[in-house]
Amino acid sequence: MTKLVRNAAGREVVTEINGQKAIPFQGVGAYKPEGIKHAPHISSCSDYPADGNKQVDSIREALLKAGIRDGMTISTHHHFRNGDLVANMVFDAIKKLGVKGIRWFPSASFPCHEHLIQYLEDGTIHHIEGSMNGPLGKYVSEGNMHGMAVLRSHGGRYQAVQDGEVEIDIAVIGAPAADPFGNANGLEGDSACGLLGFALADSQYADKVIVVTDNMVPFPCIPWQIQGNNVDLTVEVEKIGIPERIVSGTTRITKSPDRLLLAELTARFCDYAGIIKEGFSFQSGAGGTSLAVGEFFKSVMKEKGIRARFARGGSNKYLVSMLEEGLVDYILDGQTFDLDGVRSMRDNPRHVWTSPFTSYNYHGKGNFAPLVDVAILGATEVDVNFNANVVTHSDGYLLHGIGGWQNCLFSKTVILPLPLVRDRVPVIIDEVTTLCGPGELIDVIVTERGIAVNPLRKDLIDAVKDSGLPLKSIHELKDEAEKICGKPEKNDTGEKVIAAIKWVDGTVIDIVRKVKVQE
Amino acid sequence: MTKLVRNAAGREVVTEINGQKAIPFQGVGAYKPEGIKHAPHISSCSDYPADGNKQVDSIREALLKAGIRDGMTISTHHHFRNGDLVANMVFDAIKKLGVKGIRWFPSASFPCHEHLIQYLEDGTIHHIEGSMNGPLGKYVSEGNMHGMAVLRSHGGRYQAVQDGEVEIDIAVIGAPAADPFGNANGLEGDSACGLLGFALADSQYADKVIVVTDNMVPFPCIPWQIQGNNVDLTVEVEKIGIPERIVSGTTRITKSPDRLLLAELTARFCDYAGIIKEGFSFQSGAGGTSLAVGEFFKSVMKEKGIRARFARGGSNKYLVSMLEEGLVDYILDGQTFDLDGVRSMRDNPRHVWTSPFTSYNYHGKGNFAPLVDVAILGATEVDVNFNANVVTHSDGYLLHGIGGWQNCLFSKTVILPLPLVRDRVPVIIDEVTTLCGPGELIDVIVTERGIAVNPLRKDLIDAVKDSGLPLKSIHELKDEAEKICGKPEKNDTGEKVIAAIKWVDGTVIDIVRKVKVQE
Repeated sequence: MTKLVRNAAGREVVTEINGQKAIPFQGVGAYKPEGIKHAPHISSCSDYPADGNKQVDSIREALLKAGIRDGMTISTHHHFRNGDLVANMVFDAIKKLGVKGIRWFPSASFPCHEHLIQYLEDGTIHHIEGSMNGPLGKYVSEGNMHGMAVLRSHGGRYQAVQDGEVEIDIAVIGAPAADPFGNANGLEGDSACGLLGFALADSQYADKVIVVTDNMVPFPCIPWQIQGNNVDLTVEVEKIGIPERIVSGTTRITKSPDRLLLAELTARFCDYAGIIKEGFSFQSGAGGTSLAVGEFFKSVMKEKGIRARFARGGSNKYLVSMLEEGLVDYILDGQTFDLDGVRSMRDNPRHVWTSPFTSYNYHGKGNFAPLVDVAILGATEVDVNFNANVVTHSDGYLLHGIGGWQNCLFSKTVILPLPLVRDRVPVIIDEVTTLCGPGELIDVIVTERGIAVNPLRKDLIDAVKDSGLPLKSIHELKDEAEKICGKPEKNDTGEKVIAAIKWVDGTVIDIVRKVKVQE
Repeated sequence: MTKLVRNAAGREVVTEINGQKAIPFQGVGAYKPEGIKHAPHISSCSDYPADGNKQVDSIREALLKAGIRDGMTISTHHHFRNGDLVANMVFDAIKKLGVKGIRWFPSASFPCHEHLIQYLEDGTIHHIEGSMNGPLGKYVSEGNMHGMAVLRSHGGRYQAVQDGEVEIDIAVIGAPAADPFGNANGLEGDSACGLLGFALADSQYADKVIVVTDNMVPFPCIPWQIQGNNVDLTVEVEKIGIPERIVSGTTRITKSPDRLLLAELTARFCDYAGIIKEGFSFQSGAGGTSLAVGEFFKSVMKEKGIRARFARGGSNKYLVSMLEEGLVDYILDGQTFDLDGVRSMRDNPRHVWTSPFTSYNYHGKGNFAPLVDVAILGATEVDVNFNANVVTHSDGYLLHGIGGWQNCLFSKTVILPLPLVRDRVPVIIDEVTTLCGPGELIDVIVTERGIAVNPLRKDLIDAVKDSGLPLKSIHELKDEAEKICGKPEKNDTGEKVIAAIKWVDGTVIDIVRKVKVQE
């Protein structure tokens, strides 16, 4: 069995992942990286077509030219979300080539990738490093994957590639628009997804880079979100994604009264705490509650004549309307969730595409996350020490990715609006099933039964003490949840470690064990 | 004395430059680089201000925080051309700190940097690696600099930094607009210069990066041509450049009848040769003749209803007018030469800022230069083998930089419109004083007395043979030049090697020797 050690968060974690040494979490900001960034081989233009045309006939041919062989690491991105067709095509081709033991390194996987379970079964794919949403998560949770999964935040994925922790042999980058030289963007074409930032590290650091598009345009493809100078080969295929699963035509704010209450309480808290002020900045997720928070922000801002300097995306029509109404100067966007987001990013120079490098990479010379005044985030569980979990359910199943969540914890104020109870299971508990974010970075828990402020944030407690908001301690909230559902039983897992959860600096903050499958 | 060897171009060159091994030129495309790119140290956000504010009070303080010490390599860029104030301020500060033996690595230097000769004299600067236009060139030519100068093309400079051939300790990047985090661009402010591409490699690969601006804006400075995530320190000073010397308010086409004739012949040649066709691309310099070529192109295109896919800049009002009139789809611009260029780049998404990485780096996975159908370039001398010189005059003085010239030689057709004689000195001669570009890459010499096509380009010779254009052999042109001026005497230089001329792949294509100073 893998050797376990207790890390600085008190969690037992692995010291080796798939044969590679792993460093236990040492505390926020404590681990100091040494050494140099990963450096790709020096190329020469004399080895590339003089006319700039790097196009080959098929994904198969591109993989062969890129030197595909057993045991390689192949990366893809998830800007197409549950509408992605590229990863499945890539592994169909790999399977046909008879190549085995691939490490698949997606920025995230979705239910559409259930197709790949057969390749996990037959050894084409050895293991996945990347967020697993849905069926693959279930498959892995039940202990079926050969290797150990590794989950990283968006910033952590960039960090891992930049630092050489993960060396990508072949990156396959699906692109809604590209030219034969390899310049590519996500703004145009049937599969438009907005931007391609999740593939940036791959394009910069992978040994070989393949761009796959269903919309080949003549050079130059402008803007070049992915730079052709980093690309080895280009391929045109009929279809890279299913548009309606890539971006939604309409984003909808929650209509649930409970969630609207959470949103309203969150906005009122921010207002009282003095966070909503001229020139402030915010990041709010794409979920229904988060969207509603944004709308409440908007009405406070309009009422008081306040303008935000920037909002961090995921973008959607609500955020775009704030930009267009002059309520925010800039959207700094990491992914677009609807067609209004795509249009705005394409046409409005104030709607700026970012990347995990600019926004989240913890091993850079700073990043944007700590400049954000307030981040509104979610969680599956929070414990009485404000520690939070975003990847597993309380039954132990690993069903969600980390996304930018860990990275956003560095915002000046982090607020989690959460229902006290979900599906008759308390959300606020004694100890999280899986630790994804240390409590010291989580400032406020907003529930429909009350708001708990982290005792570390005396400034916030002072600011809102006379607000009339329903302030409670985190223990009071936990007790209320238990009153409703009863005290939850300790989750009973197996011994086998099926996944490691990385912190933003590449250290291991927690592990996930195999669930006990009900017979 | 330095050991010399004969390179593949038949030139005697050094094998060591300032104590570092140098590789002789091996032929176009022959040298294959090995190894990996230069990799900077891994940083951690925990070592940078949590609020993203990296601003310090002065250049002196920034240099101290960056760890300035004897023998370091300090880089600057030349987007401010002869209006730059930054490099002089930096070395004034270094002088006051008593630091010695600096290698100054500008992307180019200009007459405004004559101020720095005192620091070459007193040992503050050991030597310069970078193009030297004017007084510094004269100073170096006369053998006064401690170390050997190294001249590189724009692409070669990127290559040298990327490959780790030049390790920059501290990059100082003057920026017309910046935020305290270090995001910066050249588009806004009193010192607007358009873009900052010449500093891109420096920002990516230098150990420490300092952004100096006279226009600090609140985060985020959009667009971020230089990414703050690569920046260590920011400084605000009163003035970084002299606007009227950075970009001209008005660009003027030549009125010289001789030059207009060169331009007209060049355009007619391109027209007959079938180069000016739907979807073609061109690059034309910023000199008076080149501008006139562009205007002739424009009239041909309008007459025939032809639209170019892209034009490579340097941009100016003439090129901008072609973009605005819909004659070119895109300008891919490396530097803006006038205010219309700056405005267009700021406001028109089809006026795209590029960098030596995208356009010129020979050690990338291709670059843009070979995709250009025709490049119109200059030269100080051309010889009967079509070899050309752009850095020295026939008296041996090293007075010009290479710029993007070597890189543009990879365009599909390279045309040099040149007067047969300059200042009573033949321009077409038996052997160039300094070899900057091998004749095999130079296709056509256009002079007022006739046009010579490189015999290697049988296709071009066939295409224009019935054009009625005054076609001659290069030998005929040389003879005509000698009829006018007499046969030039062989230039009499000293022994001392004062500069090495690099080819685009980092090999040494030629050297420059000390001139014999007239007493």
